[in-house]
Formats: sequence, structure tokens, C-alpha cells
Amino acid sequence: MKTAVNATMLKKTVRLALAEDLGAGDVTTHRLFPRAVKAKGVIVAKQAAVIAGLPVARAVFLAVDPKVRIAFRVRDGARVQAGAIVATLAGDGRSILTGERVALNFLQHLSGVATLTRRFVDAVHGTRAMILDTRKTIPGLRVLDKYAVRLGGGRNHRMSLSDGILIKDNHLALAGNLATAMRAARRGAWRPVEVEAATLDDVRAALAAGAEKILLDNMPVARIKEAVLVIGKRARTEVSGGVHLHNVREIAAAGVDAISIGALTHSAPAVDLSLDLTPSGP
Amino acid sequence: MKTAVNATMLKKTVRLALAEDLGAGDVTTHRLFPRAVKAKGVIVAKQAAVIAGLPVARAVFLAVDPKVRIAFRVRDGARVQAGAIVATLAGDGRSILTGERVALNFLQHLSGVATLTRRFVDAVHGTRAMILDTRKTIPGLRVLDKYAVRLGGGRNHRMSLSDGILIKDNHLALAGNLATAMRAARRGAWRPVEVEAATLDDVRAALAAGAEKILLDNMPVARIKEAVLVIGKRARTEVSGGVHLHNVREIAAAGVDAISIGALTHSAPAVDLSLDLTPSGP
Amino acid sequence: MKTAVNATMLKKTVRLALAEDLGAGDVTTHRLFPRAVKAKGVIVAKQAAVIAGLPVARAVFLAVDPKVRIAFRVRDGARVQAGAIVATLAGDGRSILTGERVALNFLQHLSGVATLTRRFVDAVHGTRAMILDTRKTIPGLRVLDKYAVRLGGGRNHRMSLSDGILIKDNHLALAGNLATAMRAARRGAWRPVEVEAATLDDVRAALAAGAEKILLDNMPVARIKEAVLVIGKRARTEVSGGVHLHNVREIAAAGVDAISIGALTHSAPAVDLSLDLTPSGP
Amino acid sequence: MKTAVNATMLKKTVRLALAEDLGAGDVTTHRLFPRAVKAKGVIVAKQAAVIAGLPVARAVFLAVDPKVRIAFRVRDGARVQAGAIVATLAGDGRSILTGERVALNFLQHLSGVATLTRRFVDAVHGTRAMILDTRKTIPGLRVLDKYAVRLGGGRNHRMSLSDGILIKDNHLALAGNLATAMRAARRGAWRPVEVEAATLDDVRAALAAGAEKILLDNMPVARIKEAVLVIGKRARTEVSGGVHLHNVREIAAAGVDAISIGALTHSAPAVDLSLDLTPSGP
Amino acid sequence: MKTAVNATMLKKTVRLALAEDLGAGDVTTHRLFPRAVKAKGVIVAKQAAVIAGLPVARAVFLAVDPKVRIAFRVRDGARVQAGAIVATLAGDGRSILTGERVALNFLQHLSGVATLTRRFVDAVHGTRAMILDTRKTIPGLRVLDKYAVRLGGGRNHRMSLSDGILIKDNHLALAGNLATAMRAARRGAWRPVEVEAATLDDVRAALAAGAEKILLDNMPVARIKEAVLVIGKRARTEVSGGVHLHNVREIAAAGVDAISIGALTHSAPAVDLSLDLTPSGP
Amino acid sequence: MKTAVNATMLKKTVRLALAEDLGAGDVTTHRLFPRAVKAKGVIVAKQAAVIAGLPVARAVFLAVDPKVRIAFRVRDGARVQAGAIVATLAGDGRSILTGERVALNFLQHLSGVATLTRRFVDAVHGTRAMILDTRKTIPGLRVLDKYAVRLGGGRNHRMSLSDGILIKDNHLALAGNLATAMRAARRGAWRPVEVEAATLDDVRAALAAGAEKILLDNMPVARIKEAVLVIGKRARTEVSGGVHLHNVREIAAAGVDAISIGALTHSAPAVDLSLDLTPSGP
Repeated sequence: MKTAVNATMLKKTVRLALAEDLGAGDVTTHRLFPRAVKAKGVIVAKQAAVIAGLPVARAVFLAVDPKVRIAFRVRDGARVQAGAIVATLAGDGRSILTGERVALNFLQHLSGVATLTRRFVDAVHGTRAMILDTRKTIPGLRVLDKYAVRLGGGRNHRMSLSDGILIKDNHLALAGNLATAMRAARRGAWRPVEVEAATLDDVRAALAAGAEKILLDNMPVARIKEAVLVIGKRARTEVSGGVHLHNVREIAAAGVDAISIGALTHSAPAVDLSLDLTPSGP
Repeated sequence: MKTAVNATMLKKTVRLALAEDLGAGDVTTHRLFPRAVKAKGVIVAKQAAVIAGLPVARAVFLAVDPKVRIAFRVRDGARVQAGAIVATLAGDGRSILTGERVALNFLQHLSGVATLTRRFVDAVHGTRAMILDTRKTIPGLRVLDKYAVRLGGGRNHRMSLSDGILIKDNHLALAGNLATAMRAARRGAWRPVEVEAATLDDVRAALAAGAEKILLDNMPVARIKEAVLVIGKRARTEVSGGVHLHNVREIAAAGVDAISIGALTHSAPAVDLSLDLTPSGP
Repeated sequence: MKTAVNATMLKKTVRLALAEDLGAGDVTTHRLFPRAVKAKGVIVAKQAAVIAGLPVARAVFLAVDPKVRIAFRVRDGARVQAGAIVATLAGDGRSILTGERVALNFLQHLSGVATLTRRFVDAVHGTRAMILDTRKTIPGLRVLDKYAVRLGGGRNHRMSLSDGILIKDNHLALAGNLATAMRAARRGAWRPVEVEAATLDDVRAALAAGAEKILLDNMPVARIKEAVLVIGKRARTEVSGGVHLHNVREIAAAGVDAISIGALTHSAPAVDLSLDLTPSGP
Repeated sequence: MKTAVNATMLKKTVRLALAEDLGAGDVTTHRLFPRAVKAKGVIVAKQAAVIAGLPVARAVFLAVDPKVRIAFRVRDGARVQAGAIVATLAGDGRSILTGERVALNFLQHLSGVATLTRRFVDAVHGTRAMILDTRKTIPGLRVLDKYAVRLGGGRNHRMSLSDGILIKDNHLALAGNLATAMRAARRGAWRPVEVEAATLDDVRAALAAGAEKILLDNMPVARIKEAVLVIGKRARTEVSGGVHLHNVREIAAAGVDAISIGALTHSAPAVDLSLDLTPSGP
Repeated sequence: MKTAVNATMLKKTVRLALAEDLGAGDVTTHRLFPRAVKAKGVIVAKQAAVIAGLPVARAVFLAVDPKVRIAFRVRDGARVQAGAIVATLAGDGRSILTGERVALNFLQHLSGVATLTRRFVDAVHGTRAMILDTRKTIPGLRVLDKYAVRLGGGRNHRMSLSDGILIKDNHLALAGNLATAMRAARRGAWRPVEVEAATLDDVRAALAAGAEKILLDNMPVARIKEAVLVIGKRARTEVSGGVHLHNVREIAAAGVDAISIGALTHSAPAVDLSLDLTPSGP
Repeated sequence: MKTAVNATMLKKTVRLALAEDLGAGDVTTHRLFPRAVKAKGVIVAKQAAVIAGLPVARAVFLAVDPKVRIAFRVRDGARVQAGAIVATLAGDGRSILTGERVALNFLQHLSGVATLTRRFVDAVHGTRAMILDTRKTIPGLRVLDKYAVRLGGGRNHRMSLSDGILIKDNHLALAGNLATAMRAARRGAWRPVEVEAATLDDVRAALAAGAEKILLDNMPVARIKEAVLVIGKRARTEVSGGVHLHNVREIAAAGVDAISIGALTHSAPAVDLSLDLTPSGP
């Protein structure tokens, strides 16, 4: 994960999550175990899933206690069946108890994102369309959510608002005019400009104004097909809005370059995982 | 929201979310609008929902630009129908564009939590059971997730590990013995102690050891009913595990005091909301 | 200390304390010692005391230089006599010099809290009363101050305002009416509610309203005794206000469950400790 | 206080203190008062004191709620009698309740420091000695503790280790030799160098090495008098160690320039203050 | 500056700069002026320059004291002559004195960057080449340095490593092979890929591998011209290395799209500015 | 560097710099190298320089990946010739690529400061004048800039505004009167007071008021010589303003104690350094 995710940012995210879960300290564990108690643990998937977030879970346990050992039984991004052991733990049982919930909270959410992404990616297998995420991520988890999307086989759209120009409906509502907006956007721009289009007229205007990418927003599939024909090789095409598992393949088959889906990150159900501890001798 | 949520913590959460979405700055808006552009906006619910997070959305826009005005059309926690306007905005359109996504990301997630909670609370209406959340929240959003649960009519279980003693299966696995664990937990304790039980024997042992609350974990409904009879008024009862909308009423009818549900916060689908902007004259 | 105190929080507290003491860097040490100078050190108690904060002192030195070795000669919470060596240090003398003051500042304050607490705990030995702290802690040191209280044999009252319901005089002044306040507090509450009482009428009203704990505030001992009789087993009892070493035993003997004392954390005199360095060979 | 204390630092200190006291939010106030409740409050000194920290208390309430109004009845640093009203408050009673404890915690500690300092300053009135603080401050409160010392009529010694060169016993233990240490310290130094001395021989060596200030550490008064004669006008003199209210005047009368006292900041008992609230009409 | 620069980030940068300059507080101002002293000030350019950073200077003064008024006499990015007044200030003189140095430090550095950029931009006026910055910025000032470049008429290259794919010499040294590297980079990429080339063979290989942008690194002008011919319209071209004011026009005239220059941000001399205060009556 | 620079502060500065350069993560490296790739690297000076910042560069690489090994070939502060290898690196090539730019950004800037300082220090060699820096540092880099000045042979003036009293022209403009200002500054001051003087009359007034240091600001050399004669041994002397490499020796020869130069830190051109990577076998 070293280069995939900014390590400084990861540490900070983990620290915040621990701070809110530990509060002033883990009173139950502290009361029950005045002294260290050697323990072993396993993290088990309770359902089939794409596992995501193992290095985050490790970072959680190490933040609690650098002496906890955690070994991954599968690589981050692996598909596993229900019952699979995804990681094993060893060390002071108190430290494992204290980090358990936060580690699982990251794992269950990120695995949820990766698992849902994988279902969409599989659904478009064999077409030329890539599955993209959006900026509709859980506040505070942008980078990790997008990492989980990649593990599920998806690709990342913009990381942030400073990360490329995308002229959307609200920009056009205020700018009044696509042509003017495009001129402002492209003057001296070192990167491609993308424009949102809701109709074929929008698409033609975007092409005329020199858009390098066109976002076909909330179009029925029939119109998407027409738009793809109109655009040809003059711009790259992205579809968003109204995309579900039941229609994503049809959309992909229309020949678009990319399909972006907010639900990957904002509505992925958590994957069920558990941590089981046992004492491990003197 | 002033006393409901620590304001300092809220500001920090909002700043982090803005930081990750703005990156170095909003290049699209900056390119298109070199000067201020007066605008009005509405935030619209695209589906029926319990709205949660309006003060968070306000905090987002004010962090971007203290001059943006935002008025709530409904109170936080209100039930709305599809199409309802939940808030109106006015100010420099650039600031609204820059804050839009982050504000909506909070609203869509928190409204999702409140909406799902409300469905469970409605399902047990008329019984004595309260719906509780868990510590299975999105990392970094503990306090806001639990605030949304309250808006949906649920009640909060522990905020953090320092917030009450709850002896779970993994604690018992390491402690070896419930009686010993309870003695350690209750010595000089100024608060009630809760113990997890999976069988009726566990329940009896917990009572014998003086547990003031008993968590009936992953029990079938029939066993829950028996446990309630065994316990009587000697302890308060909480059910967790295997709770769904289709069986929650039956569980509640068994006479338990509380039902805790991780899905309220870890698997609530986002509520669909949009922000629509229009220019508002010179 | 691993589970007793949130490690993330501890690191942050230590970093802040070092930041304010180091300023831009330790000019004296830097000028005098351009190169590493091997040294040994001892931390000595200059008076009889309960020692508290050894793991904090270790965290200070490790934050300055991870290669400093520190060994505890007594466990945290031990009673020592004047002259006792509580810890030994070895490593680059420059690092020890740079961390010395901050480490001692923590130790002298926390040992002060533990030592004073122990005097109160000893004074009530044999009674059923436990000694509790309050929220009257040094700003920024809440968690450590309460940890020191535990080391001195005391127990912790609320860690924060989110940590239990306690209705005090100012709440009642605004609510107007104890019965209304209690109804609001108890509706759907998963935890016991505590109410402050200044008179026996207050006590009776609290019982009538269903208070599970009653705080007898600033009452003379005679009235405390009456209150205990009135309350019986219907609620747990806590005394606060006007508690001193000379009268704490008499109060305890009245049969209350707990006595809370602000002075434990806001007025404990520092324990005198020193660090003595010697060079240690080539 | 604007220039006396770094405002950025003050805000951060206040935020930390609020964060630890609010936890996830003030549940009692939130439960009791779903809506705003107009209130007035007074902060009252329960004992004679030098009041310190009013601007900090204001910063606390404003951090909770920018609409709370707080008016100071006395200036920061004023001497007041028992019963004096030091400030009045008005606004939403919920905000005042939520900020109450943190505001008082700052006031009671800082007023304690100022009050004790004033006693020492008064004790040496008419002599040429100034009362100095030390770096023995409460971790995290260095700047505020030293501000309180100034309000009590004391002067500040070093703020941090980067703030002037002071060669102490442990430096000399490692350097081996005062002359060498002084040469290293003074080479190209743009500021005066101070050296600790325990004996008259140390004093003479310090003078010979060119010390501009000499710290007479833990000397009996008779030796202090001799040291003052030996030094004359060749260096400024500071006394530390073994200074109490009963002997500080005698030490001052020996003719030293300054007397530094750790107890001012590490052992000042809190001043007793209370906040009383009343509702203030519709 | 609202949308140009992330406001949250700006505040943090300003706070850090004030923290390091104020230390514990401004002792000189505090000693000299126990009470507020009304003052007016002007910020004057002591040399011809492009002014950059006025909103940062405002943020500095407002962080010290929200009541200081600052009015800009020129817009950020304006060219001014020596002697020009760029801003006026009014308020408590103590607050202006305390913020003076930090405000000027930002202004002198950022104006230096803008002024140097403008010289390069003017030098290529009339050609099709845009002047780009690099990631060779002052640590901590990335966003502001790049903002100043825009004010000087330059354009921004990547803000960060997550902001576009650029394969440089060190990547190729490890990857072994440009073709393999390009395949890995382009698989499912939603953005253009840029490759560094040192020779014409490199250029041809980059084209063959499908590079959308080619960075001509440290090439003599003659080779740049050849490269432009070889590339034609198949990729966009950027020159870096060995670019100076004396040769930048010749390079631009070779027909490249962009010229990136590290010196804009790492070696721009500060612009000389001063702040002059006068008292302003009762 | 352990005691020279506050390690806590250093880590924070490094983290900020990495955060802004990594953004969400290093996409190029991540795309190209899915697995670790063993590499060796050298950091080479491309021009003669005084090298400063090696421990900062190490901190950067270790923050990216604690397993990267970095060995210094020269000590921090060494003079090197063009072509000199200043450090070698080994480890996962991905980590080195990710940290490269930030490490070099620190090194090139700090070496620039040290190199320019050394030129001034050499220019005054043999005189009694020391070269001082100012508070005109790059915002956020105060401590490191001043560390680099020391490595170049210069000495540090005030670290911050809390670090000594210096009465400048703007203070006098508001105070009205040097004598009054000095009285306020010296009352009970434990440190020397410095005053800025622009004329010989100012110098005489400063002496009369008891100034221990006098700052001769923007004086021609002839006037500096006179001032030195007037002052004699009654105060230490510092020159600032209008100091360049061509006149610094003449100023020093006038007999002043110190010469302070803002350009050392605000206008030092970066030193050219590069990092060259090679794969290092299986």
C-alpha cells in the first residue's frame, strides 16, 4: 500500500478513528486484565467478498501496540469465500481487544466498497468500458474509498476538485453559455477538459467547443448509443446517473469509455467479518 | 446541534472533508469565474427520507465562505417526501459550487443512517424495546453517525470504549471465567456492568455474578423469550446479531429492553439529494 | 498503561508538552555538546510519594530520541520513600538533558495527584465509600489526571460530558422543575441518571422522580447521615463539596457509596523529583 | 491579552480542553433542553484572590457558541475579595452549561498561580529582587502559566530551551569542566550566558569564565550573601531552590537580582470560583 | 482567492507561520503598549514588482486580531512601481506590529515568485509556449507558490504526485523499458500519460508507446527543434532543464507547447516591501 | 540534529511537505511498480555548495518507508564541490521515488541558505563581526532556515517575537518617545534590551536610555564608523539594511559586533542537486 496511499494521511486517519473509539481508554479491558495476556486471533470473513483494507487494519493494531504481530493470509484485493481466514494476529490480548473494533470497521467498509465494485466490473467484462468512482465518497475516507475501488477492479476519477477540470450542470447554469465556459477552461490549460451533457445538442456543443471528454449524464441507453456515434473518436465518453447492476452491461455495450457510479462508495453494504481470540499459553 | 455534538469536533471533521475534496483548490470554478457571481440554490430530496445533517452542511458552506447564507426549510430529523426542498442557499455561486459535493456527501450519508434507523424504530412501535446503535460506525464519523441515529428515533449505546463496561465473548475467551471477570469489573465501579451471553447458561451465570445488563447475542427468538423470563427484573436486556427489518418486531415483542443493530451505521444506503443552482442577478 | 490510557492521546499530549518546552531547540545542550556524549541518569524521589506517570516520562524521552533506554525501578503507582530511585536512564546525554524538564513536569504533577488521592483513600479505609475524582482537572490533562487518581486508589467519575447524565443545580435552575428534568433525562435512556440534591426535600424529590444516583452537595455531615437513611437502597449516594482530609472519614462513615473531591486534581502539590546525570565512559 | 499570548496557541489550548470535556457532546444538557433557553450567569470568587484567565474563559464560551456574551467585572490580574463577581454571562443557557466546567477549570488554576505569585511578590516588596517563574509548569500550559505569573506581579524566566543559554549542574556533570563549557557557550553568542553555581568556588569559576548571569542554586542565605559580595556588579544574580514564603524576604534582602520559584506554577492551589445561572425570560 | 486556494489550507499555513514567529507572544509590543493604541499603516513596494499574496497578508492580520482593517490598493497580481502603496491598514497598533513580519514574509516571497514568473512569461510573449511551474516548490508552500505563478501569468503543472502520470528518468531506470512502463501506465487510465525523453530515440519510443505528452529534458535548442518536428501533432511537448531568461524565447520559438522552470519557485529573490505605521489619534 | 532542532517540529514539517506533494498517493510509481523493486540511489551536488538538510532528507525518506536506508557521505554543513556524492540510498525503489522530490526540495533550499551564509561569513573573516540572520525567513521554515544559517557559519538572532526585546522604528512611531519606550521595556526585565537607531542622535538617545544593544539600521558606512566610536563599550552593536557581499567587509571593519542580513533566508538561490537511481538486483 506504500505508494498507493499517502502513508502520512493513512496514519492520521487511523489515529482519528482510534481516538473516537478509545475515548479516554478501554475501561473494560483495563479492568479485566491488569497484566499482559498472550493471545492469538483470526480475522474471518463471514461472507464471500473482495477483501480490502488489510494494511489499514495492520496500521490500527500497530498504533495501539507496535508489538502486535499481524499476518495476512490473503493479499489485499483478494476474493474470498465465507469462512476464509483473512489474517492472523498474535500479541498482548489487551492490545488486540482494544484495536479490534476500529480495525474491523475499516475492513468491513472498505471490503464492502471493493466487493460492490467488483460486481460492476465483472458485469462489464469483455466490453471496453472501465468502471470509475466519483467524488461521492464518505467524508474523511476519500483516499481509502478510492483505493478500495481500485482493489475491486475499478478506476479512479478525480481525487479532488484541484485534480482536473469538469464542467457540470451547475457551472453551466451560472456561466450561461457552454462556449464561453469552455474558452475560459481551455485557455492555457495543460490538461484535458471534460463537460457534462444531458442532450445530444449538449454533446454537439461540447464537441464544437473542443471538449476532450464528455460526461453523458442521466441519459437513457438509446440516447447514449446515439451520443457515442455522434462523438466518434473526437472525445472520450463517460456515463453517469441511473447506472445499476441490471443495466450496466447494456450501457457498456453502447461503446462508452467509462461508467462512473456513486453507489460504489456511498452505498456499499459492509462486509461481515469477525475477530476471534484465544489465549496462547504462558 | 450546539449541545448535541461537540462543535470543535464538528469543525475539524468538516475541515478534513473539505481538505480532501478541495485538494489545492477548485480549478474548474476558478477558471470559469474570475469574479463573484451571485447565485441561489436549493437542496432537494430526490426520494422520501429522514433528513439528517443540515447543520453539518451549513458548517461546510460557512467554512468555504462565511458569507454564504443557508436556510433550512425543514428541521434536522424531519421526514420528507421525494421532491421536498430541504434547504435554500444564496451567495457567491463560486463558494456554493466549491462546497456542494462535501455538503451533499455528509447529508446523503447521515440521512441514510437516520432513514434506516427510522424504519427499525417504526417497526417496533408500541413495544417497550428501544433501538440502539453500536460502535460499528464509519471510521471518523462516530459522533455524527450516532447523532443521525438519534434523529431517526434510535438511542445511543456506548460512544467509545471508555464509556461503560461491556464484557464480550473475546474478553471471556481470555479471562477464562465469567465470575472472575465480573469481580474484576465490578470492584469499586461507579457504573453498571453489561455482559454478553450466547446461551441460557451464560445468562444464569451473568445473573449470578451480578450483571446489571445482559447482552443476548445472536440468539434465536425462542431463546430470547426464555432468557427474558429467566432474567425478569434482575437485569436490563439487550439483543444483538441477526436483527433485520423482517424479524425486529418479533424480537421486540419478546419483551427485551433494547435491540442494537450495526447495520444502522455501517450499511445504510445513501439518500439521493441534489443541489440546483441558478444565477440571481447583478 | 497500554489500555489504561489512549496511546494516541498520550503521544499528542507529550508532543505538545515537548513543543512548548523545546521551542526551536535546546540551545544550551546544542552549544555545549556538538557530538553525542554517553550518559547514565537516575530519577530520584526527594520525598515520600505515590509515583505516577512513569510511562509518560518514558514517552517523553522516546519522543526526543528513540535510543534512550529507561528502566523503571518501581511500578507506576508504587509508594516510595524519600531518596528512592524510581527509574534509570542511559543513552546520549544530550537527549536526556533535552527531555529532562518535560519528563519531570509530568512526573511531579501526576505523582502529586496520586499521592494526595492515596491520602484520602487511606483515610476512608475500612468504610464502604470509594473516593471519586471530578471534572475539575487541569485543562489538557483530563485523561492523565484521572489515571493518576486510579493509581492513588481512587475511582473515576465521568470522563466527559458525554459520559453519563448528571443533573446539577444550574440545570435545575433553568429547567425549573426536577420532575420535568428527570422525565426528559430518563426517556429511553440506556444508563442511570444522577441528580444533585442540596436538601432532604431535594433528596425526596429525586427519589420520587426515579433517580438512580443522588449527589449530596455541600451538606453538613448530620444531613448526609439523614439523607443516607432516607435513601436506603433506592439509589446510590455520592457526596461532594466541603470534603477535607480531616472530615472525609466521618463522611464515609455515614454510609455513602462515594465521595468526590475536586482537590485531588486541581490542587495537588507537585512531588519533588530530580534527575541526576553522570557521564558513562568512552 | 492579544499581544501577551499568542492567540493561535490560545485557541488550540481551549479547543483541546473543550474536546476532552465534551467528549461526543453534553448529553445532560441536550436531553433536558431540546430548545434554546435564555439565561444569565455570574462567575463569583468564593475566596480572596488575584483573578487570572478571564480572556481564556471568554475564549471557551465563544468556542462553544459565538453568541454567548461575557462581560468582565474586573480586569484580568485584579485582586478581589470573597464574594466578588468577576464576570457576567448572557445567552443560550445550554451553551453556558456546556462551557462552564472548562472555563472554570482554566480560571481556578490560573488564578491560583497569580494569587500565589502575588504573595511572593508582596513579600519582597521594597527590595530590588524580582520574582521569576521557572520551566516547572503544567505540561501544555506553559504560556498561560507564565501569563498568570505576570498578572501576579512576577517576571518570566525562559519560555523554552531555545530561549537563552543556562548551564546547569547536569550540563556541567557531562561537560566535565565549567571553563570549557563556557567557551563553547559564549563563542559568537548574541545573548548573555547564565551558569548555575552551588558553592562560592563555583561562583568564582563562573565569573572567571565570563558568565553574565549566575544562578545560586540551593544555597543557605548566609552563602547567598557572600556570593552577592563576591559577584558585585560583574554579573546578575538569581536564587533558586529552598525558597518559601517564610524566607523569601530574607533572601531578597541579600541583594540578589532575582528569585525563581517552581512552586508558583507546579503547586499553586486552585482558587475557588463558581458559576451561577438563572433563566432570563422569554 | 476563495476558490483559487483551499481556504482551510490557507488558514493552517498562516497559523503555522504565526505560531513560529510569535512563539509565546510578542514581548516587545506587550511591554511597550499595555493598552490599545490606534494606528494606521501602509504597505509599500520598495521596488518594481508583481504583487502576490495580499489575501494571505490579510489572513495573517485577521488571525492576530479580527478587528484590524486592511484595504488593498492594487489587486493581487498587479504590476507596481517602486514606491507604490499596495495596501493600507488600520486598527490596534499592537496587532499590526505583531502580524507585520509574518505578513511581509509571505508577501515578499510570493511577490518574488510572481515577479520572476512574469519576466519569463513576458520573454515568450507572442509564441505559443506557456510557462509552467514544477514540483520544486518551497516545502509547505506548494499551493501558494503555484498561486503566485498563476498571478505572474504562468500555468501550473502537477500539484502533487497523485495529479497525473509523468514517467521520468528514474522510473525508466527501474522499469528497464519504456514500452513496458507505458503499458502499465496506460492500462485503464482516464488521463493522458507524459514521458520524459532525453534523446530523439527516446522521443520516438515515447510516440510508439502512445505517450500523449513528451517532456524534452535538458536538450540543446537544436535538438528541441528536431523533436518538435518528429512529434508533430501526435503529442504535446514540454521542455525542462537549462532554461534561463536569456534562452527561453529561443526555446519557445522552437514551437513547444510548454516550458517548465523550477527556478520560478525555488530561487526567486524576495521582493522588498515595508510596512510603515503612524498613530491615528485618540 | 537531535538537539539542534526540535524533533517534534521537524517531523511535523516533513509530514506537511509530504502531504502536499503526495496528495492522495504517487500514481505513477504505483502504476508502474505493483511490487517492490530493489534500488540504490545517490544524491549528487551539481554545483559547489555548503550542504544543509541531510537529516531532513533522511526524515522524509523514513516517513515514506522506515526501511529505506540512507547514509551520509558528508556531514551536514560540509563544503562540497560540483559532482560530490552527498548521500547514498538503498531500499524499495518505489519508496525512494515517492520521497525524492520532497527530500530534494528541502536539501536544495537549505543548502542554498547555508551556501549564501558561508559567502558572507567568509567575507568578514578576520574581523570581530558575526553574521546574523533575521526573522525574514520562509513562512513555516523558521527553525530549519536558522539551522542552515548556523551550518553556514552564521549566528541566530531572535527565533520569535517572544525571544527578546527589540524596539524598532514602528514601535517608536507609536510610542512617541524612545525614553518612555525604554523605561517600559526595561522595568523588571531579566534580559538585555535592543533599540533600532537610524541617526547618531538616535544612538545617543538609546545610550542615555540604557540600551544594552543598538541596531544601526540602514546607515552609510561612514555613519556606522562614527556610531561605533560614540558607543564604545557601552552597548553591543548590530548593523542591518543595505548589506551586500561587496560591502559587508567594509562594514565589519568598522568594528561592529554583528551584521544581520535578511537575504540569507529570503533570497538564497536553491543549490542544484539530483538523485540518481539504479536497480540493485533480485
